[in-house]
Amino acid sequence: MSAYSQLCSIASEIALIDSTANTLGWDQETGMPAKALEYRAKQLGYLSGKSHALFTSAEFGQALDTAEKESTSLSTKEKANLREWRRRYDRNTKLPQRLIEEFSEVTSHAKHAWVEARQAADFSLFAPHLQKILDLTQEKTDHLGGKQAEAYDVLLDEFDPGAKAADISQLFEGLRPQLSTLARAAVERSQAIPADLLHDHYPIAVQQQFNREIAESIGFDFAAGRIDTTAHPFCTGLAPGDVRLTTRYDERDFTSSLFGVLHEAGHGMYEQGLLDADFGLPSGAAVSLGIHESQSRLWENHVGRSEAFWHKWFPRAQSLFPSLRKHDLATFMKVIHRAEYSFIRVEADEATYDLHVALRFSLERQLMQGSLKLADLPEAWNAEFQSLFGMTPPDAAQGCLQDIHWSMGAIGYFPSYTLGNLNAAQLYHAALQNAEISASVQEANYAPLLAWLRTHVHEHGSSMLPADLMKAATGSSTETQWHLKHLRERFLG
Amino acid sequence: MSAYSQLCSIASEIALIDSTANTLGWDQETGMPAKALEYRAKQLGYLSGKSHALFTSAEFGQALDTAEKESTSLSTKEKANLREWRRRYDRNTKLPQRLIEEFSEVTSHAKHAWVEARQAADFSLFAPHLQKILDLTQEKTDHLGGKQAEAYDVLLDEFDPGAKAADISQLFEGLRPQLSTLARAAVERSQAIPADLLHDHYPIAVQQQFNREIAESIGFDFAAGRIDTTAHPFCTGLAPGDVRLTTRYDERDFTSSLFGVLHEAGHGMYEQGLLDADFGLPSGAAVSLGIHESQSRLWENHVGRSEAFWHKWFPRAQSLFPSLRKHDLATFMKVIHRAEYSFIRVEADEATYDLHVALRFSLERQLMQGSLKLADLPEAWNAEFQSLFGMTPPDAAQGCLQDIHWSMGAIGYFPSYTLGNLNAAQLYHAALQNAEISASVQEANYAPLLAWLRTHVHEHGSSMLPADLMKAATGSSTETQWHLKHLRERFLG
Repeated sequence: MSAYSQLCSIASEIALIDSTANTLGWDQETGMPAKALEYRAKQLGYLSGKSHALFTSAEFGQALDTAEKESTSLSTKEKANLREWRRRYDRNTKLPQRLIEEFSEVTSHAKHAWVEARQAADFSLFAPHLQKILDLTQEKTDHLGGKQAEAYDVLLDEFDPGAKAADISQLFEGLRPQLSTLARAAVERSQAIPADLLHDHYPIAVQQQFNREIAESIGFDFAAGRIDTTAHPFCTGLAPGDVRLTTRYDERDFTSSLFGVLHEAGHGMYEQGLLDADFGLPSGAAVSLGIHESQSRLWENHVGRSEAFWHKWFPRAQSLFPSLRKHDLATFMKVIHRAEYSFIRVEADEATYDLHVALRFSLERQLMQGSLKLADLPEAWNAEFQSLFGMTPPDAAQGCLQDIHWSMGAIGYFPSYTLGNLNAAQLYHAALQNAEISASVQEANYAPLLAWLRTHVHEHGSSMLPADLMKAATGSSTETQWHLKHLRERFLG
Repeated sequence: MSAYSQLCSIASEIALIDSTANTLGWDQETGMPAKALEYRAKQLGYLSGKSHALFTSAEFGQALDTAEKESTSLSTKEKANLREWRRRYDRNTKLPQRLIEEFSEVTSHAKHAWVEARQAADFSLFAPHLQKILDLTQEKTDHLGGKQAEAYDVLLDEFDPGAKAADISQLFEGLRPQLSTLARAAVERSQAIPADLLHDHYPIAVQQQFNREIAESIGFDFAAGRIDTTAHPFCTGLAPGDVRLTTRYDERDFTSSLFGVLHEAGHGMYEQGLLDADFGLPSGAAVSLGIHESQSRLWENHVGRSEAFWHKWFPRAQSLFPSLRKHDLATFMKVIHRAEYSFIRVEADEATYDLHVALRFSLERQLMQGSLKLADLPEAWNAEFQSLFGMTPPDAAQGCLQDIHWSMGAIGYFPSYTLGNLNAAQLYHAALQNAEISASVQEANYAPLLAWLRTHVHEHGSSMLPADLMKAATGSSTETQWHLKHLRERFLG
């Protein structure tokens, strides 16, 4: 057996274990009885231990060394798999066991402290935990990247392989002034539209039917997936032929669950478009958060909030929800394009969302560079917020304590949200250059669009780095212009 | 580490794997998307391979040998665990690999052949497969029991440890004449009551609410369990704090799902009553099918079809189902005590059920003894059926082809159904000797009854053999008198 085949064989065993663990994880979030939690944690601990042991085994490491030496005879895809395995193997083996355990312990306490600090709106309760996380993260990046690398690059690499802090900084610098202007105009224009204009009674069972019709019509395959209900919506690709979404329902507002389903179905169709034959290999796995998020944003915003989409679906919505019959399509479009300044990122609309991300990226990077001291974070957050939004959070709960990410040690994650928005606009623009896609999208027929995404994004898995994938699909790595163009057309057009 | 502790440690790892596999199995039966089937089979194959390898490892075998030699210092429960491990270890290691594989292949084909044969009502399509199964089963029992043992005893031992064909034969001989008389009288008395007397529209959501109220009221813990919908109802204990039931709904007849839930909740409360601390050890696992079925039958028939139960619940049923308001309690009781001769076992009522089992036991045993040739099975079935029920199946689909068990190689399984009925009546009678239980049951309060079952049955797991468990709980091993008394009172009283 060649070293490459040996790697595939170990990877396939790891995939059996990980997909099993993911199924238990899905069950835990959806229907598991409360009293099952303790034993479930043992099962998941056992499975992740087995998986980690296989991936970091001497056998895997040696096969990887050998395969790299023999790699001239391998295909492009096989070489890409080696590249990804090497990246992940190093991330998994370069850290001392002591550091891994300390990080796990510190973040476990930090999550509890964060919940309490947010409830009390008191940053001082969380600060010592976050300081420990920052120190350990610095130590982590020293091990992984060497002391000469910018620490933030090492962090980014975990979520978006190949991304550089300097490039992302440039993207945000390009975005920021125009985004601010755009957001202000969008918010002003929206003031005439009450946020609760469509609020009424929309029975959950009917919402479920409508969501399912729409998810099916855009191409989510229910023979290979399902939708369940959870407090925090997510999408998880469990195995070939098994991709599961969740959403939550607001009986007063059917668009809440609907846009949630469009978003998660975007993630889900990416997972359904990965090559089943490559399951367990990097070439059969999603390449980055920034590409994953591009798929959810494309279907949620570019498709799901478009005129053509609602030209088709608004009559159906009116027939399912009698209370919608008193509104016309034009009003409905104004409501779903409504923009407003808010303190909380997860509640932000399309027009203001990236400003929230810009703020986090800038502060995170400064914290890692040491140019911002942790004690000054709340003040820096508020000052930056004031400059971006023209208002100041009333307390830390609505300011620097609002997101869970830092308490989990996920530093470097936030930029993926904006990369997702930029990639979505750029991919959608590129796809629409095709006349058939452009025409069919006008008729709310998305089969040609999905086929294009399958070929240009999904089927590549991790065979190309995100920047290369974007170049191959659109002619350029991630740019700001298409997202700005989209926002201008939607909010100033 | 003592040899006994080593066994516990391996058993605990096996439990992690098996409980994980069972969770995947539950998911497959309830909500898994159709296209996930192929990979799910690989996951389950992988997990069962790992589990089997641990259980049949030299390490486990040696520890078992050593622990048996050192067993004088062990507690009664620990000795019982050794006994069960030995029994299962021998069953898992005494068979040649070739025989295991052949059995698996033959039954895999046999299941398909059985489906086709039943559809075509043509025994000849299934006969060659069943002949192979009988031959391999004979070979299996030779390996497991030695040639001098009665083969059927070896088969019984898989489902009901310690049960003997001769004893069961005696039980059926004692039952048969009285059951025949009882059944005839019950059927005659029921002829005045149309089978569809209560048929109307009972919305599924309301049935679900009613079933849940009842399951909760008898003691099924929903913080440690749930109910889902499947075509074939079942109960599965996945892990400590995690017991899941399923049922199916008939919109015309709410009693169909309700008695299904009572039955499965009986199984479920047994699983919930096993000792969490002993999970993964025989002392924390159900002891036999005949005891398991006693719990489902006790709650379904002795509790769920009793006057006291419906005295409490009939008004609630009428308030939830307006269409029930045109009937009175007396009529309702007649319907749920209705008896009728039918060709199909799974549709049989309490009064006629055991006759179906008697027939299968007698024929199975003759087949294994060689006194009945397979070619003569359909004729023997029909003759026996005529003698028991006074009617002859119109074809093999409603005769000897009706049950799936033989196609799966599950020979020796059927007697458990009747052992369950006998044990249910005997345990219920014993519990009612307690004045508090007897009084509370009259008020449809089942907490004291459940507490008694916890102490006398559930908490013992497999620490005692079924016959010893029955003796300790009721003063006698399985007898026929209590079941016959119960049927007499219900159907002739």
